Amino acid sequence: MTTRQDCLALDASDALAPLREQFVLPAGRIYLDGNSLGVLPKATAARVQQVVQQEWGRQLIQSWNTAGWIDLPLRVGNKIAQLVGAGVNELVVADSTSVNLFKVLSAASKIVREDGPQRRVIVSERSNFPTDLYIAEGLCRELGWQLVLLQPGEIAERLQSDVALLMLTHVNYRSGRMHDMRDLTAQAHAAGALTVWDLAHSAGAVPVDLHAAKADFAVGCGYKFLNGGPGAPAFVWAHPRHAERFWQPLSGWMGHAAPFEFSSAYRPAPGIARYLCGTPPVLSLAALECGVDSVLAAEPFGGMTALRRKSLALTRAFADGVEARCAGHGLKLVSPRDDALRGSQVCFAHPGIGYPVMQALIARSVVGDFRAPDILRFGFTPLYTRFVDVWHAVGHLRQVLEGGEWREARFNQRAAVT
Amino acid sequence: MTTRQDCLALDASDALAPLREQFVLPAGRIYLDGNSLGVLPKATAARVQQVVQQEWGRQLIQSWNTAGWIDLPLRVGNKIAQLVGAGVNELVVADSTSVNLFKVLSAASKIVREDGPQRRVIVSERSNFPTDLYIAEGLCRELGWQLVLLQPGEIAERLQSDVALLMLTHVNYRSGRMHDMRDLTAQAHAAGALTVWDLAHSAGAVPVDLHAAKADFAVGCGYKFLNGGPGAPAFVWAHPRHAERFWQPLSGWMGHAAPFEFSSAYRPAPGIARYLCGTPPVLSLAALECGVDSVLAAEPFGGMTALRRKSLALTRAFADGVEARCAGHGLKLVSPRDDALRGSQVCFAHPGIGYPVMQALIARSVVGDFRAPDILRFGFTPLYTRFVDVWHAVGHLRQVLEGGEWREARFNQRAAVT
Repeated sequence: MTTRQDCLALDASDALAPLREQFVLPAGRIYLDGNSLGVLPKATAARVQQVVQQEWGRQLIQSWNTAGWIDLPLRVGNKIAQLVGAGVNELVVADSTSVNLFKVLSAASKIVREDGPQRRVIVSERSNFPTDLYIAEGLCRELGWQLVLLQPGEIAERLQSDVALLMLTHVNYRSGRMHDMRDLTAQAHAAGALTVWDLAHSAGAVPVDLHAAKADFAVGCGYKFLNGGPGAPAFVWAHPRHAERFWQPLSGWMGHAAPFEFSSAYRPAPGIARYLCGTPPVLSLAALECGVDSVLAAEPFGGMTALRRKSLALTRAFADGVEARCAGHGLKLVSPRDDALRGSQVCFAHPGIGYPVMQALIARSVVGDFRAPDILRFGFTPLYTRFVDVWHAVGHLRQVLEGGEWREARFNQRAAVT
Repeated sequence: MTTRQDCLALDASDALAPLREQFVLPAGRIYLDGNSLGVLPKATAARVQQVVQQEWGRQLIQSWNTAGWIDLPLRVGNKIAQLVGAGVNELVVADSTSVNLFKVLSAASKIVREDGPQRRVIVSERSNFPTDLYIAEGLCRELGWQLVLLQPGEIAERLQSDVALLMLTHVNYRSGRMHDMRDLTAQAHAAGALTVWDLAHSAGAVPVDLHAAKADFAVGCGYKFLNGGPGAPAFVWAHPRHAERFWQPLSGWMGHAAPFEFSSAYRPAPGIARYLCGTPPVLSLAALECGVDSVLAAEPFGGMTALRRKSLALTRAFADGVEARCAGHGLKLVSPRDDALRGSQVCFAHPGIGYPVMQALIARSVVGDFRAPDILRFGFTPLYTRFVDVWHAVGHLRQVLEGGEWREARFNQRAAVT
C-alpha cells in the first residue's frame, strides 16, 4: 500500500465492507479507539428503548420472565463463547472485568492451595493493565502471597515450583503485543501452575480458542471490540474441569442453584452459573448483546478468521505508513512487526510530545488515545475501519508532526477509560 | 378509611399527588411491586437515549470527560446520600448490592480483627435477604468465622464479646419489619462490634439517618424504591472514621488514587472512592440517576418525611382494609401493625394458596409478588401509589378469595427478582 488509490482499491475489494453499515459512525471522524470504547451499533438504540419503554415501562417486574432478563447473562455469554473458543454454557456475562478477575483468581488460588500448598506466587507482566495487577495485589495481600511482575521474555523461565498462577492479558493494552496462549499455558501447566487470561483486547479482535489452549480461567471486557457500550458488563469463563471445584467467594444469590427458593444457605449453581453474583444491570446487558451480535454478524463473511486477516492488513498498513510517511519525527514503533505477535492495535512511542501530538490529532478528528508516559495508541476494528481511514490517519499524523501544531494542542483531556 | 369515596378524598387532598406525574404507569394496572422493581420515570427514556445516541454514539470515548461519565458514581452517590443521612462524598454507586456487601464486610472484618482478634462471629437475621446471608457465609468460609442467624428478638442478647459484625437489612424483605438502626447500632457498639446495614428496602422508602445512627457501613439497591431500572447499580457507604482504614479487597482501578496514571502498584483513593472497583455500567448508571431524581423531586413537598407519612397511611389502609374486607379467608398479617416497625410494604401469609392467589391477582392487573413459602407481598411507593389503588387492590383480593378463581390461576411465573 503506497497511495490513497491503493487504499480505496483495497476497500472496494473488501468482502467485509458491508459490516460497516451496522454502525453509527460520526461523520468526518476517523475513530481509532475501538480498543477503548467500541462504536455504537445501529441496532442498540432501538433495543435499549424497547427494554426501557416496553419491558421495564409496561411489563415491569414480569419481564424477568416474559422478556427473559433472567437468562441474559448466560444467553449473551453463549454468544461471546463462540468468539473465544468456549463451549456452550461455559461462559457468563457478569460484573466488571476487575470483579471477575477477583473471582477466578480466588477460585484458582484455592485449587492450587489444595494441590500444592507451597505455591504462593502469582506471575504477571509488568505492563499488564493496572486493574489486573491491583486485583492480584489485593488477593496476594489477603493470602500472604507474592505478585511477581516481569517482562514478556522473562516469564517462561520464572515458571518454577513456587508459582501458583500465571495471570496475563492476552493482548497488552499498551504495546498491542500478543502472548502465545497455548504455548504459555502449556509451560505453566508443565510447571504445575494454572493460567488466568484476560481477553479484554482479544475478544472480537483476534481469534481465541480457550479449549485448544487448554486455558484454565478467562475474563474479558464488553465495551471494547465487543461494542457493548460504556462500562458494558464483563464476562467470565472457567474450564469445565475447574468450574465446580470450588465456590468463588462472591457467592451472591444469582450464583445460587435455586435463587428463588430464598433459602438461607448458599448452594452454588452447577457449572459457570456460580460465577454470577448480584442482579445484573439489564439495560447495559441488552446493549452488550447488540454489540456482540455486531461481531457475530461477521460469521457469514468468515468470522474471526476473516476479521483477523483484515485487522492484520490494517495494522500493517498503518505501521508501514507511519514509518514511511512520518519518518524523521522521532516516532518509534512499539507494537510487534511480526503478525503473529500483534493484536489489533498499533502503538508508537514519542518521548516528550506524545500527549500533545495525540491532542492535535484528536482536534483533527483522528481519534486514538495516549497512554502515559509516551504511547500514542491506535486501535483498528476491522468491522468498521477502512483502508482509506488508515491512509488519512497517517496523513494527519504527518501534518501534525510537520506543522508543529502539537505545540498548540490544549492539555485539556483528563483521561480516557481504556 | 372505609369507602372508595374516602380514598378518593384522601387522594384529592394529597399534597404529594403531583409527584405521580413523573412516572410511566401502565393503564389499568395497580402496581404494588415497587419494592422489587420501581416503575419507569418519564425522564429516563430520553436520558438513556441521550447517553446512547449523543454521548456514546457521537462523542464516543471523549464522553468520559465531556459528558462526565467518570464522575457518575460519585455524582449519583451524592444524590442518594441526601436520602439516607450520609455526608457529601461519603457514598458511591458501584457494582451490585452483593458485591458491595463483600467489600464492606471484608473491610469491617479487618477493622475488627485488628481491634479484637477473638471476635469471629457475624450476627444476622434468619430471614435476611438470601444474598446478604450468602455473601456473609462466603466470607465466613474464607476467614474461618461463624455466621449466626437469629430471630429479630434474639439479636440484642447475642451481641457478646465474640461478635465481630452485626449485619442486618434495615427493612426485612419478607415481613416489611423495620429494625431500630440507632438502637441496634448502639447495642452493637457497646458490645464492641461493628454494624453493616443493607438499605435495599429503605433508601427512598423510609427516612434513614446513617450519621445519627452512628452506623459503620451501609449498602443499598438502586432498582427498588430508587426507581433506577432493572438491575440498576447499587451503592456503598462507609463512615468517614472507617473509610480509609483499610483497602477493601476488590481493589480495582476505579478505586485507585490516580487511575489514569496507569501505575502498576495499587494506591487506594482517599475516602469512599476506594470502594469503586471496575468501569461502571454507564447506561444503567444514567437511568439510576433519573430514578434518584424522581425521589429527590419530593424535597419541595417535604421530602422523605412527607413520603413516610403517606407511606404509613397507605400501608395502614391496606392492612386494615384486607383485615376488614377479606376477613375469614385465612390471611394472616405478617407485617408489623406498629407504624414505627413497618417499612413501606405489607405482607400477609396464607398457607398453601399464597402463590395461586397472587397469580390470580396479577391476572386481574394487581401486581404484588409471592415469596416462598407462603407470603403475599405488597409494596407501596408513595411517589405514585394512590389511596384509591389501595381500595381497589383490596377489592380484587377479596374477589379472588371469595370467587375461588385462584384455583384456576396458572402456575406459570417462575419467579421475580426481589
